[in-house]
Amino acid sequence: MTDVAPHLRLTLKGAQKILAAAIAKAEEMKVPQCITVVDDGGQMLAFARMDGSRVLSMDSSNAKARTAASNKTPTGQIEDPMGIKLAIAMQGRFVNLPGGLPIIVDGIVIGAVGVGSGTGAQDVEVAKAGLTALPGAKAW
Amino acid sequence: MTDVAPHLRLTLKGAQKILAAAIAKAEEMKVPQCITVVDDGGQMLAFARMDGSRVLSMDSSNAKARTAASNKTPTGQIEDPMGIKLAIAMQGRFVNLPGGLPIIVDGIVIGAVGVGSGTGAQDVEVAKAGLTALPGAKAW
Amino acid sequence: MTDVAPHLRLTLKGAQKILAAAIAKAEEMKVPQCITVVDDGGQMLAFARMDGSRVLSMDSSNAKARTAASNKTPTGQIEDPMGIKLAIAMQGRFVNLPGGLPIIVDGIVIGAVGVGSGTGAQDVEVAKAGLTALPGAKAW
Amino acid sequence: MTDVAPHLRLTLKGAQKILAAAIAKAEEMKVPQCITVVDDGGQMLAFARMDGSRVLSMDSSNAKARTAASNKTPTGQIEDPMGIKLAIAMQGRFVNLPGGLPIIVDGIVIGAVGVGSGTGAQDVEVAKAGLTALPGAKAW
Repeated sequence: MTDVAPHLRLTLKGAQKILAAAIAKAEEMKVPQCITVVDDGGQMLAFARMDGSRVLSMDSSNAKARTAASNKTPTGQIEDPMGIKLAIAMQGRFVNLPGGLPIIVDGIVIGAVGVGSGTGAQDVEVAKAGLTALPGAKAW
Repeated sequence: MTDVAPHLRLTLKGAQKILAAAIAKAEEMKVPQCITVVDDGGQMLAFARMDGSRVLSMDSSNAKARTAASNKTPTGQIEDPMGIKLAIAMQGRFVNLPGGLPIIVDGIVIGAVGVGSGTGAQDVEVAKAGLTALPGAKAW
Repeated sequence: MTDVAPHLRLTLKGAQKILAAAIAKAEEMKVPQCITVVDDGGQMLAFARMDGSRVLSMDSSNAKARTAASNKTPTGQIEDPMGIKLAIAMQGRFVNLPGGLPIIVDGIVIGAVGVGSGTGAQDVEVAKAGLTALPGAKAW
Repeated sequence: MTDVAPHLRLTLKGAQKILAAAIAKAEEMKVPQCITVVDDGGQMLAFARMDGSRVLSMDSSNAKARTAASNKTPTGQIEDPMGIKLAIAMQGRFVNLPGGLPIIVDGIVIGAVGVGSGTGAQDVEVAKAGLTALPGAKAW
């Protein structure tokens, strides 16, 4: 193992492509959403709160993106009460709700997208649409 | 005074125009920035963290936007130690640093833009450029 | 009872031995982990976040170590909903998940180790391996 | 500009080399220290609290490392009251005290080291010694 390893980084341009595609999908579905794109450390790169979405859903879209970046898998797949315990342990920074997808390119997690304000299924659909805009990103 | 009053609301589309113009200005200046657009309640509508900007400056761009929306004036104009005392009282949600400008249309505060990661003067310049993209918005 | 009592204290050298043995076990298992060693007051002495582990698991490894030092027993053995209620009451500083073990020498709790990012069983296995590196420490 | 850019990542092994060299220097100076190594997003990779150091200095070593990673320059060089205002705005996650140095390899910021519990000059000396252990890291 080396001291410093090659890595990939999601640029703002890449994050904005994902955000725009997710917004377009949500508009098409007529389901306004909060949409968050984060880097591999779970920190925000790009965000949009659509007209008519729920203001508190910002917190869940942020937490979903952060959780997907950390866990490297889609969010919302942990059995309760484990999911609830983890959410409490991580003081709400983690959430076990569907709508967060990691952004994986060449097998490397470079960030995640989180969507909140619809049903779980709607949130996932919008997040998936976002990822299709990034060439080479793993589809879920 | 009536029970319910006419109001104006900044849409996501309006917020995104401001964000895009601010990014374009920061690129032209070669000063990567964190840029936050909030509604009249200081809650985030749109956000971008540019490549090469300081990750902690998210906190200051958010606080500047929140402060400008609340105070209805550009940020950073309060004499110290009053500015510092207010920031402490508001636990960092308020900040007395330049780079936050209220978005005012027809005399109504509909939101604010906050910019952080450059010098104070650079942050203000980028915020001003953002506002020029919204027809009818008061110039600062 | 006297005013001042004899005590034992885990040194950084002792904490680092536990950390190194836990890392070696996690490498052998090919399960990257976040590993935290705390003193008897639950405050961090030594920490490592392994390549490929989940960044949010820092919060759980910290909470597990803190909880084990406080409760003086392995974590994750409290029946729900009591465990969840305690976690909420302690605002995430306490967690009822397996992976935290107290470090007990001569019957005195001198600290704890917490492990997070694997399954509960994997976390416990790594924590146990850590303790074997400290001569005289109670095995769990 | 591309969607995804090449990047470098500090491994745990690299972080531990920096930590070990910083500890060795602090021992030689007989000044016990809290030492934090973070990734490029300011999140902890490796940590040690030396015997006899000040327990609250954990908070400052963490904040110094986070600040140096974000600002991409050594900490403690901002004029007050600007430094105080930034610290308040970032709710203590930023600190304008000497002892934080970014880790830069091939011109890319891959993390930072923060040291706290001595005088500012002692903290900087220990941080510098840490960086010498990472081949190719920029010296300060």
